[in-house]
Amino acid sequence: MSKKYVYLFREGNRNMRELLGGKGANLAEMTNAGMPVPKGFTVTTEACTQYYEDGRKISDEIQEEILKNLAILEEENGKKFGDPANPLLVSVRSGARASMPGMMDTILNLGINDTVAEGLVKLTNNPRFVYDSYRRFIQMFSDVVMELPKRNFEVIIDKVKEERGVKLDSELDTDDMKRLVSEFKAYYLEQKGEEFPQDAKVQLMEAVKAVFRSWDNPRANVYRAMNDIPYSWGTAVNVQTMVFGNWGNDSGTGVAFTRDPATGERKMYGEFLMNAQGEDVVAGIRTPQPIAQLKEVMPDVYDQFIDISQRLEKHYKDMQDMEFTIERGKLYMLQTRNGKRTPAAALKVAVDLVNEGLITPAEALLQIDPNSLDAVLHPTFDKDALAQATPVAKGLPASPGAACGAVYFTAEECEEHAPDGPVLLVRLETSPEDIVGMQVAEGVLTCRGGRTSHAAVVARGMGRCCVAGCGALQIDEESKVMTIDGHVVKEGDFLSIDGNTGNVYLGKIPTQDAAISGEFATIMQWADEYRDLGVRANADNPYDAGVALNFGAEGIGLTRTEHMFFAEDRIPAVREMIVASTKEQRQHALDKILPMQRSDFEGIFKAMKGNPVTIRLLDPPLHEFLPKEDEDIAALAEEMGMTFEALKQTVVSLQEVNPMMGLRGCRLPIEFPEIAVMQTRAIIEAAINVTKETGKKVLPEIMVPLVASQSELKYIKSIIVPVADELIAASGLDLPYEIGTMIELPRAALAADRIAEEADFFSFGTNDLTQMTFGFSRDDCGKYLPRYLEEKIYEHDPFARFDRRGVGRLVKLAVEYGRETKPGLRMGICGEHGGEPVSIEFFHRAGLSYVSCSPFRVPIARLAAAQAAIRYPREK
Amino acid sequence: MSKKYVYLFREGNRNMRELLGGKGANLAEMTNAGMPVPKGFTVTTEACTQYYEDGRKISDEIQEEILKNLAILEEENGKKFGDPANPLLVSVRSGARASMPGMMDTILNLGINDTVAEGLVKLTNNPRFVYDSYRRFIQMFSDVVMELPKRNFEVIIDKVKEERGVKLDSELDTDDMKRLVSEFKAYYLEQKGEEFPQDAKVQLMEAVKAVFRSWDNPRANVYRAMNDIPYSWGTAVNVQTMVFGNWGNDSGTGVAFTRDPATGERKMYGEFLMNAQGEDVVAGIRTPQPIAQLKEVMPDVYDQFIDISQRLEKHYKDMQDMEFTIERGKLYMLQTRNGKRTPAAALKVAVDLVNEGLITPAEALLQIDPNSLDAVLHPTFDKDALAQATPVAKGLPASPGAACGAVYFTAEECEEHAPDGPVLLVRLETSPEDIVGMQVAEGVLTCRGGRTSHAAVVARGMGRCCVAGCGALQIDEESKVMTIDGHVVKEGDFLSIDGNTGNVYLGKIPTQDAAISGEFATIMQWADEYRDLGVRANADNPYDAGVALNFGAEGIGLTRTEHMFFAEDRIPAVREMIVASTKEQRQHALDKILPMQRSDFEGIFKAMKGNPVTIRLLDPPLHEFLPKEDEDIAALAEEMGMTFEALKQTVVSLQEVNPMMGLRGCRLPIEFPEIAVMQTRAIIEAAINVTKETGKKVLPEIMVPLVASQSELKYIKSIIVPVADELIAASGLDLPYEIGTMIELPRAALAADRIAEEADFFSFGTNDLTQMTFGFSRDDCGKYLPRYLEEKIYEHDPFARFDRRGVGRLVKLAVEYGRETKPGLRMGICGEHGGEPVSIEFFHRAGLSYVSCSPFRVPIARLAAAQAAIRYPREK
Repeated sequence: MSKKYVYLFREGNRNMRELLGGKGANLAEMTNAGMPVPKGFTVTTEACTQYYEDGRKISDEIQEEILKNLAILEEENGKKFGDPANPLLVSVRSGARASMPGMMDTILNLGINDTVAEGLVKLTNNPRFVYDSYRRFIQMFSDVVMELPKRNFEVIIDKVKEERGVKLDSELDTDDMKRLVSEFKAYYLEQKGEEFPQDAKVQLMEAVKAVFRSWDNPRANVYRAMNDIPYSWGTAVNVQTMVFGNWGNDSGTGVAFTRDPATGERKMYGEFLMNAQGEDVVAGIRTPQPIAQLKEVMPDVYDQFIDISQRLEKHYKDMQDMEFTIERGKLYMLQTRNGKRTPAAALKVAVDLVNEGLITPAEALLQIDPNSLDAVLHPTFDKDALAQATPVAKGLPASPGAACGAVYFTAEECEEHAPDGPVLLVRLETSPEDIVGMQVAEGVLTCRGGRTSHAAVVARGMGRCCVAGCGALQIDEESKVMTIDGHVVKEGDFLSIDGNTGNVYLGKIPTQDAAISGEFATIMQWADEYRDLGVRANADNPYDAGVALNFGAEGIGLTRTEHMFFAEDRIPAVREMIVASTKEQRQHALDKILPMQRSDFEGIFKAMKGNPVTIRLLDPPLHEFLPKEDEDIAALAEEMGMTFEALKQTVVSLQEVNPMMGLRGCRLPIEFPEIAVMQTRAIIEAAINVTKETGKKVLPEIMVPLVASQSELKYIKSIIVPVADELIAASGLDLPYEIGTMIELPRAALAADRIAEEADFFSFGTNDLTQMTFGFSRDDCGKYLPRYLEEKIYEHDPFARFDRRGVGRLVKLAVEYGRETKPGLRMGICGEHGGEPVSIEFFHRAGLSYVSCSPFRVPIARLAAAQAAIRYPREK
Repeated sequence: MSKKYVYLFREGNRNMRELLGGKGANLAEMTNAGMPVPKGFTVTTEACTQYYEDGRKISDEIQEEILKNLAILEEENGKKFGDPANPLLVSVRSGARASMPGMMDTILNLGINDTVAEGLVKLTNNPRFVYDSYRRFIQMFSDVVMELPKRNFEVIIDKVKEERGVKLDSELDTDDMKRLVSEFKAYYLEQKGEEFPQDAKVQLMEAVKAVFRSWDNPRANVYRAMNDIPYSWGTAVNVQTMVFGNWGNDSGTGVAFTRDPATGERKMYGEFLMNAQGEDVVAGIRTPQPIAQLKEVMPDVYDQFIDISQRLEKHYKDMQDMEFTIERGKLYMLQTRNGKRTPAAALKVAVDLVNEGLITPAEALLQIDPNSLDAVLHPTFDKDALAQATPVAKGLPASPGAACGAVYFTAEECEEHAPDGPVLLVRLETSPEDIVGMQVAEGVLTCRGGRTSHAAVVARGMGRCCVAGCGALQIDEESKVMTIDGHVVKEGDFLSIDGNTGNVYLGKIPTQDAAISGEFATIMQWADEYRDLGVRANADNPYDAGVALNFGAEGIGLTRTEHMFFAEDRIPAVREMIVASTKEQRQHALDKILPMQRSDFEGIFKAMKGNPVTIRLLDPPLHEFLPKEDEDIAALAEEMGMTFEALKQTVVSLQEVNPMMGLRGCRLPIEFPEIAVMQTRAIIEAAINVTKETGKKVLPEIMVPLVASQSELKYIKSIIVPVADELIAASGLDLPYEIGTMIELPRAALAADRIAEEADFFSFGTNDLTQMTFGFSRDDCGKYLPRYLEEKIYEHDPFARFDRRGVGRLVKLAVEYGRETKPGLRMGICGEHGGEPVSIEFFHRAGLSYVSCSPFRVPIARLAAAQAAIRYPREK
């Protein structure tokens, strides 16, 4: 039997997301739960994949199957597609496995044409509605399928409105609508060189193709890249019997959430518009009414909707985001899905659902996207500064958080200026083209649109602060200036916006760090109960160490000692050490560095209050500390009392063809043991001093970088151990310390059994390990990796998301080999992947002991580790 | 029970080489075979290792065991160590697992002191012999144990000889010897600040320590590095009852081979000296007599020796190299070992032994060191030129081959000038300090010493041409000039020497390539019968391909297309391609390159006569083809009609921080598909043309470099395949071609199961694979790898000898993964390790299909592959 490419709604269920997409699966689920859903069918994601495999063609087989199901739809509705006497109209919507708001395109009223329109007039006796629907269809079809931009049609509408002296679309009458249909068709003919398609089946197939095509459009690709959605998933297409919110004043449409998506508060939240089609609400062109007012307009429908909402929430055990349409007084559910929410709302909803007995703590943990916590951890306004500030305007608090930045009126300019400092994107309203600009901006401020407008939805998804629908703004995009309540704000001027209140302030308001409290604390506590992975932080100074501890880090997994070398007061001594031509000169310089390093380590040990601290010995090639340009070399030579030639020679002699694979890491102390001696001394002396001063234990872990073999580690231990042991013996303390190694070269992973004999712990340096395993220089791959992603050769940048198949195999081998030698060997990971949830899941499954990440990602790692432990329990 | 560190000779056997060293094991074997071997014992190699582990101390336990065995020796000989009434004297010799001629130090006559000397005079009534032995002992002990150079004692001898008006040591009388003993002791006291040790047991322990110590001396380290002997093996020490070749004129000593070590001819070959100790023969100070003359001097001893020789050869089934001493008419065997021989002799001996029925062809193959074949393959003199040349002198033909080079009189100067062209080391006699100089020289010419002198033995081991004992040379080392038969030869002048005849010629004589014939051909034929691995060659042009085929290559495993790009007539077009700013410009340049590449490939296909040819697509980063200095950029810009700025910008934009991990390999055609299209076209058109022209099949294999994932290979195939298929279809030929990939990134090995789905073959690029696995940049590791070897962190340079533990695991995984997907997948290796015997053994065991190496190493690879197959038979 060949593959089934089309499913009627009643044939599916919620578990078929992969095949039917999220929208299709939920329509099927609601249908089978007996809810009022217009009948329809779903063309599967596999059909989409097949479309691309067939060279962007819908095969005859799939076309046939679509038409077969269309016939069933006709039969069940008692209507016929393209039949003026009793026509069936449908909507065509995309629906991928993961929701991609604003990315995919929708077509309503498909099946209408000149004769069907006439037939419908007879049937409905509502010619205005019919021609309004027709003109909308032409507009959407042209835009989505034929790439004639919607705005070109808006120009025609504006012209007619102007001629007729009206402001709103709703003020246009039947003749106006007929005229629009006629002018739209003429415009279409002029642009496309052929008549607007009258054959309903042609319309349908073209629309399905357009949905498939849109999977590959640049906006979709950007969204997928940002949200880690693989290209290979494809999108499904939902074909559904039309119901009409624009049938008349007893009709309408709306969207609503079962809880407030901004705060998580348990109250119906949403908007509706009477005599309108769905796009009108979402697009933010007309300002809709709050959902509560529906109770007054149509009490029965409202009650029915509330009842359905509650059933849906219980059914899906999560907050729902629903679309509905009322056609001549009858309610239809067009969509339900788990609602997007702000990170803060996500935390509240999850905790509330547990308290309401609807879900377990484990289910609550799984509901929260770990990455979204990033937003909760971002700064808010300083309370005192905020108290003294007076808002100049108020918009809708569309996405929480506080933002302060220089104003720019286009996404492009935001992108351009973001590198120079914080920017704020200010727009009349946003569109999908603005996504990258929103991504780089601290916050988004729009003039039009509600809390479900594009700007609001996307900003929440990104965790960006957003104030929407701030009508007080008068924006002149041309001259790059706006006025707010009489104040002139030019491009580059600073504004501050509060996504929690909707307030807009002139100038800068200082921000402050977020704290873990309330539901966040509850979730973190639950996460800690479930997770097996330890979570440490990478921190190079006492401040970062303190932040990490506050965010729940259980230790420092990586302190990069070289970062301390770059400080202005130290670099001269470091350079003196590097250019030293004798051991004595080098020792002299190291003697200057010793007290500085010691005091760094004292600070970190104190900040970590008895938690373990892993300190990596000097890692980078020495030339990184020296200037490169002749001018700078000359200046330094004078400063150091050397000749230019002598210093230049040193600089040149340290240059390497491939510094990443050069004299660095453990190769440095093999060449210059004095450096390791100084660092060991600084670490152990600091540990002794802090132990004596605080009376608390200190757990120093010395980490040797870039080891490829057991013998290197053994050799370096022969330098470190005598120094450390002598200092400890002299101190009279019982100070335990450990010596471990980075596993960051493929060979280290492959020889992990032997290396484990010498190592107290392993720490996977997945940045370097990824570099070496792929042969991708991080410094250079910017030249070719973008093309890899563009051409879909790779789905993900392996530096952003850990490569399970390749580097992962290496990690698994190293874990296996290492534990063969030492069954309880502690193994962590301190590359940037340590804070990336999908990667963390892998590290959990690979059996690592802990991950170490940047302090701000610690909560993310704690949650991701808990999710991994829930999904893939370890054998205890 | 604790470890046994000392074995009496009668407790050992030939299979205990690892523990007793080669010398010890053979002494034990001969002892147990009833041959006349002076009694003794061996301190094991494990004692040596223990000595280093104990911080260069001989533990009490080991000392005790030595003394216990010494007591047994005393008991069995009926003599007592240090007892003037009946003293036992011993020799102390090193003996590692592998023979290391000249590297380790020997002490004879140990146990003698002032009172023992007096006692011996009474016992032997031969005071001259006694004091000769004593002065020799002081000299050797001082040199080896106390680091007082031998030559300082020679100065004293020379002074005495001068005063006495004699020339030879043998002309010195008893009083002279007594005087020498007395002056030597005085010199020792003056230098060391203490008396020469009189306690025999102290002498013994110090001597044992000195042997252990000498394992770590710089000369030994150089020899080990050259001969791939691991440091960890250590050396054993043999303590043996002295017999005296210098007792008088009825005593003597000699060394002999059962066959001619230069030619392999089956006739006793060796030398002896009457009234001398062993060192006199080997050191080449007195010129010894040919062994055949012993028949006249002592016929019975001669017959007995011949009989023993033949027994030994049969016993060991190999040519033997023996040391013997005659004490007052009685023969003692001091050592036997498999004799070192020239590569040509090795071939002849092996084939002869098979013909004599002593060994099987498999055993014959195992007897030959594959690396030694290198020498057989080196050039010999052009016959015609040789016929016209007249020798100016004749020395001993000590190591075969022909050499021509600029004369230098010290090893250091040879090292200095070798990079500029061929050099010849000319010395009075060589010493172990000259090893590196001999290594870099084309050949070695000495004034003194026989065919068993240091120069001869070492040169044969290295496969260097050597003419020894050429007394006609009058060398003035000071003024760097010599005269030969009245001709003045200054430093830097050219000489030619013939190691097969001993002839020395003025000026240059052209050389010619070796051919495979005679015993060499027989061995190669046997090797081909045994080996499982295919042997291909790396060749980038028709000439190399032809050489490879002559040496038995079964195909080309690697053609580097970029090597063709560097040719003077091509580089302009290549540069034009690189700096092209549009696709059209690039295509224009590629159109110029196409016919050149096509004709290259036609040449190689023709040369390979139907054997497969693997062609790798362009691999290096493009900036390698552009100049780096401003001056050269300016010149090129003018040549190309560009502005300096424009070209400079291109050069800068192509620069990379780590080019080895940058835009190269398969990343190039992903960026510039036109390059791969051109190369595919050149390969396939060439194959079509050659097929049509010769009527023979052509087997082109297109190899994609630097692949990390299946998707890359798939992508590049989507570029290559349509081009190839279209050309083949148009040609009307049935031309099979394959597309495979290099496995040279760790990730490629780890993802080999997936890559295999797309690949027709794998070829391991072990150079890059080693680079990436270790993170060792070949361009930079010269800065730190020497220190690794020096500090014994690594035993071998992993670029010279394949790293089994690390990179090897990766190769094994890739083989396993690859064959999981495609059981019959052809897999080869084309890195430099493909011509290295130890690495080849690994590749055989890992299950690879073939190795590919430089043409001149093809015979080595054939033999090494056969040896691997014999040692580790594959399941068939």
